Amino acid sequence: MVFYLIGLGLGTVEDITVKGQKIIKQCDKVFLESYTSILSSGLSPDALEKFYDRKILPADREMVESASEEILEGAKEKDVALLVVGDPFGATTHSDIYLRAVQMGIPVKVIHNASIMNAIGCTGLQLYNFGETVSFCFWTDTCKPISYFEKILLNLERGQHTLCLLDIKTNEINIEELMRGRMKRNPPQYMTASEAAHQMMVAIDLLNERNSQKLLTPETMVVAIARLGWDDQKIVYCQINELVDIDMGPPLHSVIIPSPSCHPMEIEMLNLFRYKKE
Amino acid sequence: MVFYLIGLGLGTVEDITVKGQKIIKQCDKVFLESYTSILSSGLSPDALEKFYDRKILPADREMVESASEEILEGAKEKDVALLVVGDPFGATTHSDIYLRAVQMGIPVKVIHNASIMNAIGCTGLQLYNFGETVSFCFWTDTCKPISYFEKILLNLERGQHTLCLLDIKTNEINIEELMRGRMKRNPPQYMTASEAAHQMMVAIDLLNERNSQKLLTPETMVVAIARLGWDDQKIVYCQINELVDIDMGPPLHSVIIPSPSCHPMEIEMLNLFRYKKE
Repeated sequence: MVFYLIGLGLGTVEDITVKGQKIIKQCDKVFLESYTSILSSGLSPDALEKFYDRKILPADREMVESASEEILEGAKEKDVALLVVGDPFGATTHSDIYLRAVQMGIPVKVIHNASIMNAIGCTGLQLYNFGETVSFCFWTDTCKPISYFEKILLNLERGQHTLCLLDIKTNEINIEELMRGRMKRNPPQYMTASEAAHQMMVAIDLLNERNSQKLLTPETMVVAIARLGWDDQKIVYCQINELVDIDMGPPLHSVIIPSPSCHPMEIEMLNLFRYKKE
Repeated sequence: MVFYLIGLGLGTVEDITVKGQKIIKQCDKVFLESYTSILSSGLSPDALEKFYDRKILPADREMVESASEEILEGAKEKDVALLVVGDPFGATTHSDIYLRAVQMGIPVKVIHNASIMNAIGCTGLQLYNFGETVSFCFWTDTCKPISYFEKILLNLERGQHTLCLLDIKTNEINIEELMRGRMKRNPPQYMTASEAAHQMMVAIDLLNERNSQKLLTPETMVVAIARLGWDDQKIVYCQINELVDIDMGPPLHSVIIPSPSCHPMEIEMLNLFRYKKE
């Protein structure tokens, strides 16, 4: 009948919209996408099942990306919902499953919610003035890409802020175990703001030439954000070389590199979060 | 006690989050900001009063921008909420009233929701790939600024999409009436996507030189969006010269200029909205 893509928002089960809540109650099957973002204890399958007093089915990456028959076949006959942390078209779009549903002749409805892409406005930085978003990925012994810094420098040149999304690895197969013939998943890994700051310090050294205007230095002020939208959300405004040693607590973390040409009111807001050494 | 900034989302009273709804019920005073965006019939003060079965107080631009005593004084003793269409830190930040509350020693809590800045993801265009947002303003006989096209061209050069927010004029004083000693307000004015397309056509002519790479032409494909998040939301993907004559219906309208280097899946999503002449 209808395939609903429903945003859960960022924090707990109560961050769903009233409309979304109603739809979940009336749907025949409800899936929970369990890989694109962290499911906080407030948004765990258990918490959701308790809140709705109904079965919530897990949907892993494979199921969602292949727009699985299991999810969409049911939607031919009855209402089916896929729940997504944040907004269904936030940091991860769900275009593939949306398009597949349309091809199958199933009407799709999107229930929007807050996502990291707009909730970062609570730092006081104008969403208007953000340039392209970049993604930091985990460095390995052999691969330490710094190509995303090109984009950060371009944003800075244009007087724009940069949101840096930090790498998440969930449900990854353990290669060493696999080579021994055992199928094991690695525990989930979330890049910390401190790790991102470490990458930036290395990149600043390497970029010396391209970074001739010194747009990025170890003293550049950045914003670290942890658990955005949760009750224990933490925002810290500090230098990159300070952030290296700051523990922001449990995931998810993000970092913003504000433009040096911030509006005075943006600066005033950021100063509320100024890091003070204990 | 606590000053709450609560996002209402985009469509109707049911787009509030469950958490937001609970807080509104327990607050001593609830104000509704009534100028930064359109209050749809679904989000009119009447609809809200009916939904919550309580008095909702209007807050005009002056009250909110001056972080009025009326709003914050009450928050010293009891819980007060200011309701905002979209997200409190979406297209319009509420940094001024936030800072004023902090200065007065009043704790502030933000309840996030969807805003135009992330809900445009439903076009299938990746929020990642948006450059700086621009604002189109109404042209007058004597003033026809096209400076924002500079930013659009820069975004296009970098392969980024541009969200264009279109001008809104509400509660404007009628100057002619004022000169006759009468205080009258003009009816609200909302720029249509068609008017924005008309501005683009004029600008493309004027920009010929700077636009030497022909990044913008009358045939450039753009996305017009009307009433985002409402039940009768409309999305049209068409050429600029087509949009001039397309009626998108009641406000609010926005326009996106997608990068020509769209991802194939972005194109596939956009093609769902391809304009067909009747």
